[in-house]
Amino acid sequence: MSADYTAMMTDLGQRARAAALRLATETTARKNDALLRLAKALEANQTAVLAANQLDVAAATANGVAPAQLDRLTLTAARLTHLAESVRQVAALPDPVGEVLDDWTRPNGLRIRKMRVPIGVIGIIFEARPNVTIDCAILCLKSGNAAILRGGKEIFHTNQALAVLIAEALAGAGLPADGVQLVPTTDRAALEAMLRLDSLIHCIIPRGGESLIRFVTEHSTIPVIKHYNGICFVYVDAAADAAMAESILINAKVPRPGVCNAAEQLLVHRSLAGTVLPRLAAALVAQGVELRCDPASAAALDAAGVAHRSAQVADYTTEFLSLVLAVRLVDTVEEAIAIINRDSSAHSDAIITADETAAQRFLAAVDSAVVLWNASTRFNDGFEFGYGAEIGISTDRLHARGPMGLRELCSHKFQVTGTGQVRSP
Amino acid sequence: MSADYTAMMTDLGQRARAAALRLATETTARKNDALLRLAKALEANQTAVLAANQLDVAAATANGVAPAQLDRLTLTAARLTHLAESVRQVAALPDPVGEVLDDWTRPNGLRIRKMRVPIGVIGIIFEARPNVTIDCAILCLKSGNAAILRGGKEIFHTNQALAVLIAEALAGAGLPADGVQLVPTTDRAALEAMLRLDSLIHCIIPRGGESLIRFVTEHSTIPVIKHYNGICFVYVDAAADAAMAESILINAKVPRPGVCNAAEQLLVHRSLAGTVLPRLAAALVAQGVELRCDPASAAALDAAGVAHRSAQVADYTTEFLSLVLAVRLVDTVEEAIAIINRDSSAHSDAIITADETAAQRFLAAVDSAVVLWNASTRFNDGFEFGYGAEIGISTDRLHARGPMGLRELCSHKFQVTGTGQVRSP
Repeated sequence: MSADYTAMMTDLGQRARAAALRLATETTARKNDALLRLAKALEANQTAVLAANQLDVAAATANGVAPAQLDRLTLTAARLTHLAESVRQVAALPDPVGEVLDDWTRPNGLRIRKMRVPIGVIGIIFEARPNVTIDCAILCLKSGNAAILRGGKEIFHTNQALAVLIAEALAGAGLPADGVQLVPTTDRAALEAMLRLDSLIHCIIPRGGESLIRFVTEHSTIPVIKHYNGICFVYVDAAADAAMAESILINAKVPRPGVCNAAEQLLVHRSLAGTVLPRLAAALVAQGVELRCDPASAAALDAAGVAHRSAQVADYTTEFLSLVLAVRLVDTVEEAIAIINRDSSAHSDAIITADETAAQRFLAAVDSAVVLWNASTRFNDGFEFGYGAEIGISTDRLHARGPMGLRELCSHKFQVTGTGQVRSP
Repeated sequence: MSADYTAMMTDLGQRARAAALRLATETTARKNDALLRLAKALEANQTAVLAANQLDVAAATANGVAPAQLDRLTLTAARLTHLAESVRQVAALPDPVGEVLDDWTRPNGLRIRKMRVPIGVIGIIFEARPNVTIDCAILCLKSGNAAILRGGKEIFHTNQALAVLIAEALAGAGLPADGVQLVPTTDRAALEAMLRLDSLIHCIIPRGGESLIRFVTEHSTIPVIKHYNGICFVYVDAAADAAMAESILINAKVPRPGVCNAAEQLLVHRSLAGTVLPRLAAALVAQGVELRCDPASAAALDAAGVAHRSAQVADYTTEFLSLVLAVRLVDTVEEAIAIINRDSSAHSDAIITADETAAQRFLAAVDSAVVLWNASTRFNDGFEFGYGAEIGISTDRLHARGPMGLRELCSHKFQVTGTGQVRSP
């Protein structure tokens, strides 16, 4: 790791720390003023931002980037207008900072208040989506944190243009322009130097694929909140309503198979092998889903004449992110629970049943961030939870687990007030 | 890292994970039964435990270990009785698992409950204190977690004897004996293998000195909750009551100078240089405290004839852990806040004042885990907070910050119940 990068990142970190100390006690009004200035700037400076984005798009095109990825990094006037709208929505959300989380008085008269405060300095490591740049900047700002953003090289020019607008909005509102900083290089050595700044950066959030998250986890001495993907299960219990099971399963699998809360695995109670399973399978196949079946479910679908393939063992722990679904039969809810606790990624797992006893056992025993009864796995989402914003879906168990909104970007501190109390020996 | 250690630690991790899944839904009664069995066993098996401990004491003596360290690793009948009592106290505490932390219903009728659940598998890395072995085992058990304990080589035999009693207590209560496991080697390569088991261990808590914590942080791909030491400040404001300031300062510095919430740094408002400062200094010196002063406070103490030394720059950021206190004068509460946010370890920082405006500004702007007004820094402690137990004092900002009791050993999950809801595209 080059000494220059360490010095550069230390300077960024020190600026961020100074900005964080100021932001922590700023008023909601001033933070919102900065947000509304940014929304306006995104609309007023479309030409400059789109020109910068065109440099990235041209480079990506020259590099033969796949169309889907090219689409993700391309900005348009409509997308910028949409981004400005999302900035205004965050401005309208309640400020999480300053909330009293707990308040008690000890027998010796000491009053202890647990207050919600910003975490401090948050480092966001992300790839090639310009909306992530703006999303992360505004959520960190609203929650009183300073942010250091390190985006991928594929949107380097776009990010530079956006960072100028963010800094101007901060300064215009009387806030420190260093409240949101962009790492001015995409060199990996600079990223490694950043991940070791544990005296200045308090939290790292990687947003991207598994290899990025793995790299960050292995190189960071700063606490990381991970956002791994989801191997999500739907278990159709013996007492499931068939129509409900079909509706939820289609919703969980078909419209957006590439997202982390989409279903990848179907478990069906063996008593439904000749009845509900063929119905579900036929509905899925009609929507273009490829079924990869264990021998028992394959036999049932053979008998019913529904198309399917044989599953390989690896299919049972695969996040397909496409219109593929692995299917297994189980004998009991306990077997379903055991399989899920072994094979799922503990992200979002659902049971479909009219049997409350089975449902309560499933909700208690499945060790996942979000467990659902008679609802689609797709509801593991900050907006669907009513948070108004989402910086991601944490797959960690410390601090945040499940959807991360503004409150999850906060820490706490204890304010202890006394009248001269001292501790007994 | 040897493949054998990876296989050994993976086996330990898999057993712990299986035990954790069972413990997560066990009743409070059964967990308490195991704790009470352990308390009895600590009393009934004193001879065996003390014999094992004597092996460690003899080895430490032969190795010329310092008397203070030797005392810490030595067990006696009285200490075992005291340990048994602390186990009974944890049994009497409320069970943190299953508490409903939040409960709301979305416009679409989905009900979302945020439930307190165990974290899962917790790895504790500690040094040479047998009480830590028992403390960590019982707090993890009470909070429904499986624990993997890795103690130092200095108490290897003692830990082996204690682990047998713990496993028997678990099995006697019908709980999985793998709920608390001891790593059967103190080889560093085994520790390194353990710290990379991020698919099986959910959280690492290092208990020990800074070099141990640093090693763990650098080698772990598992989230770590750190317990660094404290560079704690007392700021005596212009409006401080002199008698209260003296009482709090003596309490924060003198009785236990080696603990993390003891004061190491004194800031005094310049208006008190000729009055309150000499009084405080004389009282501290009378208790054997060495004062290391900045030029301004040194001049004031010269004039008053109170003994002191000149501070070196490094003294202002040193955790002395002894009867040494660095002293500086400041002009304003804002200067005190700026110095604390720069030089303190953000652990426990206090203001002494009768001026509510100054106090509220201090409480809001000092960016530390526990900020105190007219109270001793020593109150940053799980027992003093009323938690009934303490596994440590977190210096992290994610998950737990400040005293860590049973609740801080828990995560949460969301139980979502519906009537067939699906997500709109």
